[in-house]
Amino acid sequence: MTERLELKYDEQGLITTVVQDDESGEVLMVAWMNEEALRKTLETGRATFYSRSRKKLWMKGERSGHVQLVRSVRVDCDGDVLLLRVEQVGGACHLGYRSCFFRELDAEGGARIIAEKVFDPEDVYKK
Amino acid sequence: MTERLELKYDEQGLITTVVQDDESGEVLMVAWMNEEALRKTLETGRATFYSRSRKKLWMKGERSGHVQLVRSVRVDCDGDVLLLRVEQVGGACHLGYRSCFFRELDAEGGARIIAEKVFDPEDVYKK
Repeated sequence: MTERLELKYDEQGLITTVVQDDESGEVLMVAWMNEEALRKTLETGRATFYSRSRKKLWMKGERSGHVQLVRSVRVDCDGDVLLLRVEQVGGACHLGYRSCFFRELDAEGGARIIAEKVFDPEDVYKK
Repeated sequence: MTERLELKYDEQGLITTVVQDDESGEVLMVAWMNEEALRKTLETGRATFYSRSRKKLWMKGERSGHVQLVRSVRVDCDGDVLLLRVEQVGGACHLGYRSCFFRELDAEGGARIIAEKVFDPEDVYKK
């Protein structure tokens, strides 16, 4: 059964988007989309977001080559969050980790690194 | 190695929080925390959020009994998104599904239900 769906973009026209590795289930990153980013993502099959700091669209991996090949797009009950399931080429995190969530909090507010780097950002982003 | 960490709350004092099933890896929901919600979550081990519509703290499962027992809290590279890994009692979604992401988008903007309900919301939320 298919229903038409109204997504709820926020007052800036953005929707929170979680990106998950389709194979391992690892949560890779969270980013934001506007309507155009979602349309491009669906059209091209490559995850494309809206950068709130640079105020423009960016395709994940456009500099690093670490693109995200979209396997499915899910939407939550409230229609205000998307979940992309992707095949991640390389690593999702610009700091060199597979996932942006490479640190764990302890009860005292400290953070401990729990992952190994999968690439060297110096090499990937230098050019 | 443990470092002190400054989380980046937004202009409303909130931080986006992804909740993931610690065992299956399923992404269950996305909600928002303020500082107090995070402190309560770390202190009690039960996921507690800030409701943007009701403008108050709520412990997940306070009405339904479908609590989230927190196994770990991760933080992303930018310090502005949290990832809770939890043991989910019952279902995370108030519509009766295990995950709030029970619909998949197609390229034409339609949405298709891809999950089965695990509880009847009429029973759980009626009282």
